[in-house]
Formats: sequence, structure tokens, C-alpha cells
Amino acid sequence: MEIDFQKGGGLLPAIIQDERTGDVLMLGFMNPESLAETQRTGEVVFFSRSRNKLWKKGESSGHVLRVREMRVDCDADALLVPVGPGVCHEGYRSCFFRKLEPDGNVATIAERTFAPDQVYGSEKSR
Amino acid sequence: MEIDFQKGGGLLPAIIQDERTGDVLMLGFMNPESLAETQRTGEVVFFSRSRNKLWKKGESSGHVLRVREMRVDCDADALLVPVGPGVCHEGYRSCFFRKLEPDGNVATIAERTFAPDQVYGSEKSR
Repeated sequence: MEIDFQKGGGLLPAIIQDERTGDVLMLGFMNPESLAETQRTGEVVFFSRSRNKLWKKGESSGHVLRVREMRVDCDADALLVPVGPGVCHEGYRSCFFRKLEPDGNVATIAERTFAPDQVYGSEKSR
Repeated sequence: MEIDFQKGGGLLPAIIQDERTGDVLMLGFMNPESLAETQRTGEVVFFSRSRNKLWKKGESSGHVLRVREMRVDCDADALLVPVGPGVCHEGYRSCFFRKLEPDGNVATIAERTFAPDQVYGSEKSR
């Protein structure tokens, strides 16, 4: 099966899921090189669209995402990656800690599980 | 909070998750119009990249994806959409939430699993 990078202009969305709880933690993108690095190291490496380069999640915080397995969907244009527990740079266990209300507002629906500035320092860059 | 459609060239990845089991079911993309349609109808409407138009999941099969809630991630460039397999427009998992008693009365025998007006808006017509 050939992975379809073309449909997304060279990038594939990769869903990161907590393998214990089933929680969806975050979504990043992978190009062929970051997918190869992820498979080689067993730790998630994305391609950062904003920085336009490979981005190993956890390289500054130490909270790397350890790959349990990698799944590809029916038309081979999306990845699902169960990992050990990971955390959002804003201090939540999942990046999806906000609920989008019908009126367009957002509500925070989770508790912070750690203090981001103690993990990431002052810049909080990811 | 402004949803960031720019980073993905006008499209936002939307992860569809079974709200009961936590299973990730699929990933599609939304543009502003499909997001608005999803919020208006309470059923998932994607933007099909291959067909280049709105695509209501289930329009031919009848297996529509009923939105339980919509979450947006920390940098507002991805959506997580828990869906309920077959939930009633009155807010129950099954439309058969009432028991017909021998005396002709009816008793509600299930708990509401969501608030219909938050999902379907004020019109509630379906």
C-alpha cells in the first residue's frame, strides 16, 4: 500500500491518540521524511508547517510521544498513532481541551495537568 | 477565538471519534462553509478534496454522523468531533427511550445523553 502524500500537498495528517484512554491528544502533519524518522526512532516526528522543518514533539520538554503502532486509513491519506500519554504545551493532557460552542465561542472543558512554564521554560515554543 | 483555516490552505482537519468507545473513526477536512453546515444541522459535513465540494457523510448510505460536540485544539487549526452512533433528536442515544406501560402510560427509561438544542440549534426540526 502506497501512502498518499499527494492529496495533502506532500503532507499527511497524523492523529496522536493516548493508547490507554483512547483520548485524542493532538494532530500534526508528516512528510515522507518525518514519517521515516518516526518509524526509525519509535518517537513521533512531525513536519512543522509554521516552521517548515522537521519537528520532534518533546525535543524541548522531554515529553516525547512513544509510538505504540501506526495505522493508516482506507484511502491511505491519514495516520492514526497510538502513543503513551502525552501533553499539550499549554499544560493540558490533550490539546483538545476546548469545546467549540454553536455560537462560535469556546469553553475550556479540562483541568490543567501540569504547569507549562516548568516544563517548557519561559518561551513555551513547541 | 478565531479558527485558523489559513494554515491548511482553507481546510481544517476534523477527527471523527466514537463518543462511546473512543475509537477514532475517520478524518476529513472542513472549510468554513462545511463547518457552518455541520454546526447548523448537527450532522457532519466535510469538504471533499477529491471532489472539490461539500460532502455530507452518509448522504447516500444514511449513516450520518451525529455531532455530540465539537472541540478545537490549542492553536485552533484542528477539530475533534465526538459522534454518537444513532442518537435521537430529542437527546437520547436511541429513539426508543420510552416504555409503553400496560395501562397505556409511557415511562422514560433512558437518560438524555446530550442537550438537543446545543446540537441542533433552536429549530430542532429533523
